[in-house]
Amino acid sequence: MPSQRNLTFYHAVPSRSGTVHWMLQELGIPFDVKLIDIRGGEGQTPEFLALNPLGKVPTIVHGDTVVTEAAAICCYLADLYPEAGLAPALDDPKRGEYLRWLFFSPATIEPALIDRVRQYKAEDSSQNSYRDWETLVPILVDFVGKADPWLMGKNFTTVDVVFGSTIRFGCMFGILPKYPEFEAYIARIDARPAYRRAQELDAPHFAAAMAG
Amino acid sequence: MPSQRNLTFYHAVPSRSGTVHWMLQELGIPFDVKLIDIRGGEGQTPEFLALNPLGKVPTIVHGDTVVTEAAAICCYLADLYPEAGLAPALDDPKRGEYLRWLFFSPATIEPALIDRVRQYKAEDSSQNSYRDWETLVPILVDFVGKADPWLMGKNFTTVDVVFGSTIRFGCMFGILPKYPEFEAYIARIDARPAYRRAQELDAPHFAAAMAG
Repeated sequence: MPSQRNLTFYHAVPSRSGTVHWMLQELGIPFDVKLIDIRGGEGQTPEFLALNPLGKVPTIVHGDTVVTEAAAICCYLADLYPEAGLAPALDDPKRGEYLRWLFFSPATIEPALIDRVRQYKAEDSSQNSYRDWETLVPILVDFVGKADPWLMGKNFTTVDVVFGSTIRFGCMFGILPKYPEFEAYIARIDARPAYRRAQELDAPHFAAAMAG
Repeated sequence: MPSQRNLTFYHAVPSRSGTVHWMLQELGIPFDVKLIDIRGGEGQTPEFLALNPLGKVPTIVHGDTVVTEAAAICCYLADLYPEAGLAPALDDPKRGEYLRWLFFSPATIEPALIDRVRQYKAEDSSQNSYRDWETLVPILVDFVGKADPWLMGKNFTTVDVVFGSTIRFGCMFGILPKYPEFEAYIARIDARPAYRRAQELDAPHFAAAMAG
């Protein structure tokens, strides 16, 4: 009975927890939000490190369950609230593809974005999960370009939240080139009421962080 | 009806697909294996790129479903074969923790191992999913040291396959220090019949790769 457990969402703006905030708004479920001032050291208190020893957000506490890692949290919540229709059921033929792209985002795209920000290029790209930037970007353009209108087809799913957040982040910070395929897809995200709600609620915190 | 779909496993030795091979042996399900000579260019054929545009293994084709990313494949298969008992059910209170560590492994530990192999240290570690090496390693030692006997408790789960493969890989290649906590846990893995079976079947391919 997921609805009987309290859900506390540890959040910071801007951070990877924006993905989870959007997800929570898509689900429309009740939750308490606790803002963690990461730069102010609130990720390093003994209380918070007991939840997430890396001192990072997003972190959720759902009943007695602690979940970290943005994609893991989204995957978990989507399955707990099947009525929201954000995840194919376990026996749906689309389930494998769904998990593929949920994992692809943090395990393959994110390391590529981070290396790009660092201006780091591996001499031996065979070690990289994403091979190399020149191989990965056309794959992303192709996949996002085929979204009709969402990445898994007609239905909006958690893949759009997780993968879409990563693509949006990459474009917003100029790491990914602003290809028309990306821009058209991001415009569809931006038009979603749940996405707007998350952005509006985060806006004052974002402004404070930028001013701080 | 998962058993009615053919499962083809694209594999290379040694590679990240070793994790999936172990998983398949734990499940004890029938599958066809296709060895891909990555160094010989077999990952770059049009046929293989149509399945996985990164040209990488592991890749599985299950009926009409293509799944890539080792952790995604393992997560997918564990849920399809619940009778193997490798995944908590969706409504099990352990499900959130289970997903946390399944994602933690490729998204947080792997990038740390890769940076360590590269001898790369970020000036600004706040970008890293794993923060920094000095923070991450004690977390791994603590988590693995508490395995009793497995990472999720009494029952062996997919977390042991995915997280365990990563720890084992890190120790085998001297990236992670050989702490007694790691060694005791790896010894438990090595004693599993399914792990041994995967190793034995891969041994001739491993020898050929090392000689080649």
